[in-house]
Amino acid sequence: MTRTGPLNGLTVIDMSRVLAGPYATMVLADLGARVIKVEIPDGGDDARHFGPFVNGKSAYFMSLNRGKESIALDLKSPEDRATFEGLVVSGDILVENYRPGTMEKLGYGWERLSELNPKLIYGAISGFGHTGPYRTRAAYDMVVQGMGGIMSVTGQPGSEPTRVGTSVGDITAGLFGVAGILSAVIDRERTGKGAMVDVGMLDCQVAILENAIGRYLGEGKIPEPLGSRHPSITPFEAFATKDENIIIAAGNEALFERLCQAIARPDISSDAEFASNDLRTKNHARLKHELETTLCTRNASEWLKVIGDAGVPCGPINNIKQVVEDEHVNARNMIITTEDAEAGTVRMAGNPIKISGFEDPSERKAAPDLDADRQAVVDLLSD
Amino acid sequence: MTRTGPLNGLTVIDMSRVLAGPYATMVLADLGARVIKVEIPDGGDDARHFGPFVNGKSAYFMSLNRGKESIALDLKSPEDRATFEGLVVSGDILVENYRPGTMEKLGYGWERLSELNPKLIYGAISGFGHTGPYRTRAAYDMVVQGMGGIMSVTGQPGSEPTRVGTSVGDITAGLFGVAGILSAVIDRERTGKGAMVDVGMLDCQVAILENAIGRYLGEGKIPEPLGSRHPSITPFEAFATKDENIIIAAGNEALFERLCQAIARPDISSDAEFASNDLRTKNHARLKHELETTLCTRNASEWLKVIGDAGVPCGPINNIKQVVEDEHVNARNMIITTEDAEAGTVRMAGNPIKISGFEDPSERKAAPDLDADRQAVVDLLSD
Repeated sequence: MTRTGPLNGLTVIDMSRVLAGPYATMVLADLGARVIKVEIPDGGDDARHFGPFVNGKSAYFMSLNRGKESIALDLKSPEDRATFEGLVVSGDILVENYRPGTMEKLGYGWERLSELNPKLIYGAISGFGHTGPYRTRAAYDMVVQGMGGIMSVTGQPGSEPTRVGTSVGDITAGLFGVAGILSAVIDRERTGKGAMVDVGMLDCQVAILENAIGRYLGEGKIPEPLGSRHPSITPFEAFATKDENIIIAAGNEALFERLCQAIARPDISSDAEFASNDLRTKNHARLKHELETTLCTRNASEWLKVIGDAGVPCGPINNIKQVVEDEHVNARNMIITTEDAEAGTVRMAGNPIKISGFEDPSERKAAPDLDADRQAVVDLLSD
Repeated sequence: MTRTGPLNGLTVIDMSRVLAGPYATMVLADLGARVIKVEIPDGGDDARHFGPFVNGKSAYFMSLNRGKESIALDLKSPEDRATFEGLVVSGDILVENYRPGTMEKLGYGWERLSELNPKLIYGAISGFGHTGPYRTRAAYDMVVQGMGGIMSVTGQPGSEPTRVGTSVGDITAGLFGVAGILSAVIDRERTGKGAMVDVGMLDCQVAILENAIGRYLGEGKIPEPLGSRHPSITPFEAFATKDENIIIAAGNEALFERLCQAIARPDISSDAEFASNDLRTKNHARLKHELETTLCTRNASEWLKVIGDAGVPCGPINNIKQVVEDEHVNARNMIITTEDAEAGTVRMAGNPIKISGFEDPSERKAAPDLDADRQAVVDLLSD
């Protein structure tokens, strides 16, 4: 077998749909695991029907399910249940993102799964996890972004509620799920025993609140949205230039000094009101005004060169087109392609985990059509 | 040895500072690994000096470094280099988040590290990764949030640039780092060989853009900030009520129908302009107006009960105080404590990865003082 990734040899039974679970199994597939999507016969994964479409195929589905296989199983039919149980017995990892209770209704709760295969790692990703008072509630990314506090610190001061522009509720749950699943695989290699990994999206939102919790508990003030500004490091935000906004992140005294030198405003760094990070944070509005007075005399690209050459972290605010075309993003193989029979060449985000000794192919196997790999999967069982 | 997590028995040499690396090693420590922070003698990890402070101790540092040990090593002193090399030889995983080139300058590039310990897993987390044209550039979270596109889709339409309110650039890089490191550990158990895991923060930002790339490449339109609204599902956003805003996420036809029934506005679901998700997305402004006309007649808490009871995903927009006090968040053990000699009881976010067979302690070992574990670490080497 060609070793395409460190997880070669591991088989994942993927009952997950839409985003959080499929994101986790995408990472596992990118790392070399064999991922078999078990889909309902009637339409499969809901995400197959989410736009935008390319020649009738969902770009959303295709990007999240590249490199996976698909078998459609009706878990109400005895024959398909036998096939599914065969997969459970022979597989290493099972991932699902149903609401707690659903697997039990199907007859495949953790107790039954571990009876079928005591070595199975069962990754259950849900809105609120399998314990606690909200466990049976339905959740989407939008709901946990609201409940988990990230929306309360995102946005312009005093603005309407602002969502993080991508589904970080789903995606971080997928990533914590991967971490839990792989740690359980490591444990299994020593103990021979499987485990259930229970990841709730709301928990993950709490886990990524970073310094917001410390600021609230340490200072007793409830953190609020600050636009682009960092709560405790200044200058560390977006600034206007003559044309576009740019990011400048002068995270310490030396960098602040260098920034003021680079834009020929030594008066700013010698100003007593800006003499320490705490003072700069307190007087951030005046500091921003002073810096922008100079920054607005030249274009973004000129300033990025001048400030970047001075060694001060800075950068443009790229739109999605600029990201997709960026030379470094492409040099890092972060825009890859798949070849789909109907949709043709489809570009999507690549794998950000680069590991020595393994290839990082810029073309990956396309997402499967519903039930496309039935024969290969059934063959796996008869091996 | 008590088994506190699936990674018990693995030792992590942690040279990382501030956020992305320490976040990764915090996850590893939460999962049971022994994490030894190797810090510079002069002040240690920069984050020890970041506010807010509790009795002189950084709440930021304490929350990210709970459960780790610390040894201060001057890598210019031959004696300390010998200790460090002893750690590399006996350790399993090394994590650092320096700019590429720094480890080589210290004499500990990947080549040298793997010579010292061919089984070592080396996790290098950096702004732009170890290859590509920007590799030597400095980056902070703020810079990659700007360059990676997430800021271009976050914020109110037409507003000033808006940062995601927590450092998702660092945190997602930490999580992808953990996934890569653990996959390499799994591979090592079979091959006996270590590997270098190279994770760039900018790459990770691209990897979490989700449907934004598909929308741009599929439709040719550059995605823009949409406030709290989902780009392709409607209604799926924040709505005003008589007092607070709430989230309603009616992600399919059945849920939309139920929502309109629950708020006694069947006229909305029978309106031809709202007859499909595509039509609702197209006519989102009028739909929002119609819904809010009714929602503004009662308080948030009343509507959340009515809409939630109807099975429609919904929730409040909690601030950090509400998150920390939430009954489910606490039932899931997502607010834990450590006991610090000077700072006393410190509360912080817990571990969102719940694994059967392992405890999830609500009190964890506090973050170490600088060099606090020198003796224990030196003892480890003489074992």
